[in-house]
Amino acid sequence: MFYHDKKLQYKVRVDKPNPQFARMLQQAIGGIEGEIRVCLQYLFQAWGSRGPEKYRDMLLDTGTEEIAHIEMLATAVALNLEGATNDLKDKLVGENPLLGAVMGGMDPRHFLSSGLAAMAVDSNGVPFNGSWVVGSGNIAADMYANVMAESTGRVLATRLYESTDDAGMKDMLSFLIARDTMHQNQWLAVLEELGGLKNVHPIPNSFPQSKENSEFAYSFISTNIDPTDKGLSDTGRWAMGTSIDGKSNFSFVKAAPHGQEPKLGAPDPKGHAQTEQMTGGIVGEAAAGIKTVVDKVRDKLS
Amino acid sequence: MFYHDKKLQYKVRVDKPNPQFARMLQQAIGGIEGEIRVCLQYLFQAWGSRGPEKYRDMLLDTGTEEIAHIEMLATAVALNLEGATNDLKDKLVGENPLLGAVMGGMDPRHFLSSGLAAMAVDSNGVPFNGSWVVGSGNIAADMYANVMAESTGRVLATRLYESTDDAGMKDMLSFLIARDTMHQNQWLAVLEELGGLKNVHPIPNSFPQSKENSEFAYSFISTNIDPTDKGLSDTGRWAMGTSIDGKSNFSFVKAAPHGQEPKLGAPDPKGHAQTEQMTGGIVGEAAAGIKTVVDKVRDKLS
Amino acid sequence: MFYHDKKLQYKVRVDKPNPQFARMLQQAIGGIEGEIRVCLQYLFQAWGSRGPEKYRDMLLDTGTEEIAHIEMLATAVALNLEGATNDLKDKLVGENPLLGAVMGGMDPRHFLSSGLAAMAVDSNGVPFNGSWVVGSGNIAADMYANVMAESTGRVLATRLYESTDDAGMKDMLSFLIARDTMHQNQWLAVLEELGGLKNVHPIPNSFPQSKENSEFAYSFISTNIDPTDKGLSDTGRWAMGTSIDGKSNFSFVKAAPHGQEPKLGAPDPKGHAQTEQMTGGIVGEAAAGIKTVVDKVRDKLS
Amino acid sequence: MFYHDKKLQYKVRVDKPNPQFARMLQQAIGGIEGEIRVCLQYLFQAWGSRGPEKYRDMLLDTGTEEIAHIEMLATAVALNLEGATNDLKDKLVGENPLLGAVMGGMDPRHFLSSGLAAMAVDSNGVPFNGSWVVGSGNIAADMYANVMAESTGRVLATRLYESTDDAGMKDMLSFLIARDTMHQNQWLAVLEELGGLKNVHPIPNSFPQSKENSEFAYSFISTNIDPTDKGLSDTGRWAMGTSIDGKSNFSFVKAAPHGQEPKLGAPDPKGHAQTEQMTGGIVGEAAAGIKTVVDKVRDKLS
Amino acid sequence: MFYHDKKLQYKVRVDKPNPQFARMLQQAIGGIEGEIRVCLQYLFQAWGSRGPEKYRDMLLDTGTEEIAHIEMLATAVALNLEGATNDLKDKLVGENPLLGAVMGGMDPRHFLSSGLAAMAVDSNGVPFNGSWVVGSGNIAADMYANVMAESTGRVLATRLYESTDDAGMKDMLSFLIARDTMHQNQWLAVLEELGGLKNVHPIPNSFPQSKENSEFAYSFISTNIDPTDKGLSDTGRWAMGTSIDGKSNFSFVKAAPHGQEPKLGAPDPKGHAQTEQMTGGIVGEAAAGIKTVVDKVRDKLS
Amino acid sequence: MFYHDKKLQYKVRVDKPNPQFARMLQQAIGGIEGEIRVCLQYLFQAWGSRGPEKYRDMLLDTGTEEIAHIEMLATAVALNLEGATNDLKDKLVGENPLLGAVMGGMDPRHFLSSGLAAMAVDSNGVPFNGSWVVGSGNIAADMYANVMAESTGRVLATRLYESTDDAGMKDMLSFLIARDTMHQNQWLAVLEELGGLKNVHPIPNSFPQSKENSEFAYSFISTNIDPTDKGLSDTGRWAMGTSIDGKSNFSFVKAAPHGQEPKLGAPDPKGHAQTEQMTGGIVGEAAAGIKTVVDKVRDKLS
Repeated sequence: MFYHDKKLQYKVRVDKPNPQFARMLQQAIGGIEGEIRVCLQYLFQAWGSRGPEKYRDMLLDTGTEEIAHIEMLATAVALNLEGATNDLKDKLVGENPLLGAVMGGMDPRHFLSSGLAAMAVDSNGVPFNGSWVVGSGNIAADMYANVMAESTGRVLATRLYESTDDAGMKDMLSFLIARDTMHQNQWLAVLEELGGLKNVHPIPNSFPQSKENSEFAYSFISTNIDPTDKGLSDTGRWAMGTSIDGKSNFSFVKAAPHGQEPKLGAPDPKGHAQTEQMTGGIVGEAAAGIKTVVDKVRDKLS
Repeated sequence: MFYHDKKLQYKVRVDKPNPQFARMLQQAIGGIEGEIRVCLQYLFQAWGSRGPEKYRDMLLDTGTEEIAHIEMLATAVALNLEGATNDLKDKLVGENPLLGAVMGGMDPRHFLSSGLAAMAVDSNGVPFNGSWVVGSGNIAADMYANVMAESTGRVLATRLYESTDDAGMKDMLSFLIARDTMHQNQWLAVLEELGGLKNVHPIPNSFPQSKENSEFAYSFISTNIDPTDKGLSDTGRWAMGTSIDGKSNFSFVKAAPHGQEPKLGAPDPKGHAQTEQMTGGIVGEAAAGIKTVVDKVRDKLS
Repeated sequence: MFYHDKKLQYKVRVDKPNPQFARMLQQAIGGIEGEIRVCLQYLFQAWGSRGPEKYRDMLLDTGTEEIAHIEMLATAVALNLEGATNDLKDKLVGENPLLGAVMGGMDPRHFLSSGLAAMAVDSNGVPFNGSWVVGSGNIAADMYANVMAESTGRVLATRLYESTDDAGMKDMLSFLIARDTMHQNQWLAVLEELGGLKNVHPIPNSFPQSKENSEFAYSFISTNIDPTDKGLSDTGRWAMGTSIDGKSNFSFVKAAPHGQEPKLGAPDPKGHAQTEQMTGGIVGEAAAGIKTVVDKVRDKLS
Repeated sequence: MFYHDKKLQYKVRVDKPNPQFARMLQQAIGGIEGEIRVCLQYLFQAWGSRGPEKYRDMLLDTGTEEIAHIEMLATAVALNLEGATNDLKDKLVGENPLLGAVMGGMDPRHFLSSGLAAMAVDSNGVPFNGSWVVGSGNIAADMYANVMAESTGRVLATRLYESTDDAGMKDMLSFLIARDTMHQNQWLAVLEELGGLKNVHPIPNSFPQSKENSEFAYSFISTNIDPTDKGLSDTGRWAMGTSIDGKSNFSFVKAAPHGQEPKLGAPDPKGHAQTEQMTGGIVGEAAAGIKTVVDKVRDKLS
Repeated sequence: MFYHDKKLQYKVRVDKPNPQFARMLQQAIGGIEGEIRVCLQYLFQAWGSRGPEKYRDMLLDTGTEEIAHIEMLATAVALNLEGATNDLKDKLVGENPLLGAVMGGMDPRHFLSSGLAAMAVDSNGVPFNGSWVVGSGNIAADMYANVMAESTGRVLATRLYESTDDAGMKDMLSFLIARDTMHQNQWLAVLEELGGLKNVHPIPNSFPQSKENSEFAYSFISTNIDPTDKGLSDTGRWAMGTSIDGKSNFSFVKAAPHGQEPKLGAPDPKGHAQTEQMTGGIVGEAAAGIKTVVDKVRDKLS
Repeated sequence: MFYHDKKLQYKVRVDKPNPQFARMLQQAIGGIEGEIRVCLQYLFQAWGSRGPEKYRDMLLDTGTEEIAHIEMLATAVALNLEGATNDLKDKLVGENPLLGAVMGGMDPRHFLSSGLAAMAVDSNGVPFNGSWVVGSGNIAADMYANVMAESTGRVLATRLYESTDDAGMKDMLSFLIARDTMHQNQWLAVLEELGGLKNVHPIPNSFPQSKENSEFAYSFISTNIDPTDKGLSDTGRWAMGTSIDGKSNFSFVKAAPHGQEPKLGAPDPKGHAQTEQMTGGIVGEAAAGIKTVVDKVRDKLS
């Protein structure tokens, strides 16, 4: 279970409130790269953890830490919205500074819906979506989901860092960027513990590779059909040498169909396709006649 | 631009149509682990690719291949739905086999909405969501997004493999599982080309680490406050030794607040909080009196 | 503005409550083919109607009628759920009939969330989505949106008709199917009034066709590259003869690129791509060196 | 910031795992009535709290408690899924027990996506949606949002209680139901502190009622036009007596339009409505002629 | 069933069209605090109403009234967009006034998608979502959902009122604000009829409180662990005195775990976790060996 | 299966990058009127095609072409974002050009999330939604869905054309507008092949019209109750003459209820409505007494 104190994990200071930056920070709260996602992702992975206990413990630690990151960012949003209704008065035309701020790129819902506070949405006001919370039950797949989240998360944080000149905000982001550095390393450390690339892959490593179609398991397939510019995809590491998982060698092949042309059955009469779909395209009364016969036959057979 | 022929990339055969399995296959089409996601993800990454050209070429190849995978699975769904309205007749009660199939776990929209064909939804009928298409502009972050997609994708495919006894379906899945093996290796091969863990991390490697708060960049933070069971998270690789990116050493610390208690300003009068929020909780007429004074002062100042 | 009386537009009778059928009916309430969509679509088209007044009047009439259809279906759902907790007792195992009904295909939220009443969701519990409400400001485009809605709506209604043996439900559906017949005809009547195919198309007919690239305006483009099976798409009406809008002749051509290979600029340094994206794939310290130089040059130039 | 220990807030025991009940429990995790919603709602309200400090403190306490409720329910889901692949073997037909469970009402994604663990979705697999997290900046409105959440939440919990015979699950639910009792009382206690109905309403109480149109502020408007059955809505408390907020008296009036028929301007030419929308419905060449003239005039004027 | 006339419920006048304000008004149409939500919410509650008939009658009256509110707001949006393509010409740079308007905060879809008319979306263009339509089958829970909707709705309307200087718009909003006043009172009147706080709570009042865990039903639980700043949450009404429902006394307790540490079973082999999850973290060949043995044993037992 | 070459279907040139126009172009990529939708729609229709083979062939051709359109637009977005971080420097205030661009109407996620590249979202950042992909199994309904998509699509493209002065963008759009002209004609050509309006309608034409309630199949129903302004809806083609499908005559009737007042049963006790819903509104102890008796009777009967 969970506890709190009233202090922030790291200081949050806004020297010059900026409602546009408040909007941008929302991406780090409710966006797919944001903190609600990693918070719930690590906690759900912990709560569903099966296997060595230390991974559950570790996931709980970091999932709990992430709640504090949402808190920091939500505080930063609220502070950036302080005086949002007045700050832009001089810069923008009109007697209505609120509208001015919205004209200037503020999220209108920061005023209309939340009364100058953070929301569980991204920088375009698109709500957080639970589908982003990945916990597959396979720890290696989950660790890659986590590395990915911390990688896009750190990229986002560095872009936010570039987007502000506010010293307080830069300081807060320098902390969050550092934590993302750690968390990237942390999930990679689990992958190392699990034996590294050669033992971990292909994920899941518990499925016998004898059951996969080995002819297609290590060949790069190029769909490029241009005879004059075949591209450079045969020059990469993925097209030659030992596979990264150490289990075979890469090859490079041109795409070719190994399957048949698909043939589906006729429409089921109860599904009420157009009559012509059941009569080979013959239209009108002739079609109706055919369908009547077909229906009768079907009725007898069924 | 893009071309097609009429054949499938690999053969799709359904020996015994099964509408429930059709529903399960939808997860591999329109689910977050599914083929629409990887198809659009690789294509959007290609179309936005900045940097060495061979990565664009390679992403286009594989993004195009994935369209063929959606096609195979959509064909498999349609074939599994053949006769969906009759197949269960004997097994389930009632005069109404359609309803019987729905009772038995079929997606009702496979009959009601698509007329026995695949849809762009997951196995619960939740529509594909474009937010899942990740292309960050940072190739290393994207490669992790791709490894993650192929890892959860291969886990899904092996679970589908376990869920069917249909030889045709198992054969199709053995192909898709093999392609996921290749694709995991393929994205890892890019990461190797980019210099491996020590050069790639922390992502983005173009942000000067001197700007992150180094005090917090390599320490595992434990939020566990139980004095009697501190858990095992100090026993993992992430708590000791050289960091995976080779740039520092891991340490283990207990969570502690480094920030202040957050203090937000009073509500903006135009935001129409309750009067008591502006009067320190004093209610009723007294509160209204206080607010009148406050408003007057504000008016003068603004 | 709007008024009501307490009676239904048409009688709704359920002879034998069936919670599975209740779930299927939800598709006609909150699904993309359902009545909330057409109701809001016609009303929003009316409220935004610009041009001859009679179209606004007519849209208001039919939009208002559709509210009554939602009402009928919502009533049908509630009646089909009467006794949902007991009806399946004998048929399904276990001491827990509620669970039995859910096992048997009932929407669990019909019990858990709504207490045996209709909801604004489809037959999989996916919520109604406002993006389905189409009103483009172009009346011809809107009429096609409406024909399409009534066509998929009538297909849905006939499939529901096939899915039940309940005489009351069949009677209600025979009414709704009839209204869909009228509404298909109604929107087509507007298109006839607007001058029929030759005047209406291409939509919008107010855009001067001289500004479109006429070379590509009436040719069917085939992307099929299989030399052995070129398919039948050159045998259709779309590949020969006068175009349907009467403004040109159809032709059939094979797909070929008319554009260049796209070339994007280098990543913006503030966007923090990987360093190797800016150094042509050269990794590690060498890359960092290159980037340092590049950054300095950029700084000077900017 | 936040901390945890490894124990649950209350014991979670599943005597007889049941994958269908696991699915139903998801409603209490990721549904609109569920614990993720209240957890984030109370925390976001705390983080954006402006006004007396004790409300922030109290919201943090309860928001933090709710994380523990998600944890309990996630644990309950995982335990109900133990052996999901075997438990139903004997009861259901076929050689494939997994498919059997899905046929029987299990969420297929509990196997396919999460590997027998909880997800951030509702009982139909619809993902949690951040739009449900309400924090308006007005504490009274927020308290009603909270009472509502705890009321629908407790209704849900009692329905889950009725849906299971598992003694462990009933025990867990008896705890959660009790907490919902407290939390209903808790948010009502704030409303009492804020002065009760007469001081709190109308929300926001900081907007001068002199600015609202007082003619319409306390009258119940009936839209019922049936002369033979006017309904009973004039017999309720809302149609007579002093208003609940004590500021006026209720009255009962029949709906009547007080506004005009809306008239919108002609379509903007750049918006490319159909030509006939700009020519009063005159079609074809005549319409084009009119439009040409109109366009010329517009061009001159602009 | 439903009827209409062509007039608006109240006059809608826009003195000075403003596309930014059009965007803000969308929040009151398709946002979670908006009129589509309350309209459908009251109608669905009516259609699913079980119990005294007068509540159904009353809900139908008000649900029908709300359609007229959507109509007013949709009209207001269209009028605010009149001339959107020209109005800002002089104020904003560039030869392209449309783009200028978008730069200035207009919703681009108001031009691109709807041709200068309202849409079923919020002020950020996020579509209306059917999950917001709450009808629980419990009338008291529903009344709180309604009070909440009218409270956040009136807060929104007052904020819109503050955001405009247009006399027509202020007049329209003064009407809508008044109706929200009435509707807050109206739902509260039902709660009074149902016996007031002491009879209504805890909701549902039909669940025997003897079945809830009484130890936890009236205690405020504080999760604050800071020994130096315990916060003020023990000073509120919720921490002392008779409970609001009159059934017990409030108490204040510190959070403590009453449950065990959760222990989940091993991963099911068919779910294809990583091998190391089944071998206690032992990696590589050794792990594979263990798994082979385990699989064999499982095969024998099953 | 699918192939590609590296060139674009048509040239994409941006003379003057404009991040606001990049945002507007997103509507044509990930919006409901956009290219991802038609691409997936035609492909899914092809993959589920039942009936004459040539329609599958033709749908595959055009579905494949549409991928190239997404590619063109994604390229156009990336090119419009080139230098997004510098271009507005001089025009907008402040030291921070990034923020300036966002203030000026750029999608912040174009910088924060994608690093200056296209995303699978609309012009408001709302993600593409798979529910828009319509394939009903009825070819005529599908053709109308396609005509509608190409009509709203061409309207969108002409509005984008009006929104830019960039010669390169106008050239690209003149190509896309031309393709929409063809595709409107193409789907209409299928409808002509299927026998035209009289054979095609009502859709589905395979449902015997004898089973629909013929009394209501061809009458326009007016819900307008205003005795002084009955509107003009009786003056349209839909109110008189032969129906468009040639199967009857239109008539005009005033709306009137043909159904009963709906009566639902009492709440199921397990659903825990409020006690008063089961006791006719009698509150408090008296209600509880009634409920106890009722429960006992139910228990005996069940």
